[in-house]
Amino acid sequence: MSLLSYFFGNKPKTASVAKERLSLIIAHERGGNRAPDFLPDLQRELIAVISKYVNVGPDDIKVQLEKQGNCEILEVNITLPDQQQPK
Amino acid sequence: MSLLSYFFGNKPKTASVAKERLSLIIAHERGGNRAPDFLPDLQRELIAVISKYVNVGPDDIKVQLEKQGNCEILEVNITLPDQQQPK
Repeated sequence: MSLLSYFFGNKPKTASVAKERLSLIIAHERGGNRAPDFLPDLQRELIAVISKYVNVGPDDIKVQLEKQGNCEILEVNITLPDQQQPK
Repeated sequence: MSLLSYFFGNKPKTASVAKERLSLIIAHERGGNRAPDFLPDLQRELIAVISKYVNVGPDDIKVQLEKQGNCEILEVNITLPDQQQPK
């Protein structure tokens, strides 16, 4: 399965209907050492950077964290308002 | 298929063997308007933020861009040196 089909599915996209969406995934596999978990801080900073490009309100952001062993996946989904013009 | 299996596969991970890896995916679905493409700039800034957390050299970063219609996926894979200690 490709990432394109994971994120956007296989249904044909008509540009005029599509909502503007931005998804950010951070997948972190920690090596053997008990390195500190920097994902929460990294997530905050990455969202701050994204907010410089698009007008994002707290309600537009959905965050999901999945953990399995020393692997973590942080998924940040941002739905942008319709008449969105990037800054 | 879950993102965890996409990134880390199903093979059991022995923490002591695993290399530290960090993947960043940005999936952008542009709405109807011909909004400018801010992904390249966003990518540079996100990598700069990540470099504050882990020691990353240019050779450790692999970037892939997939485009289909008004959907784009930027995949940044970062392999971290073994004795890596996040900053």
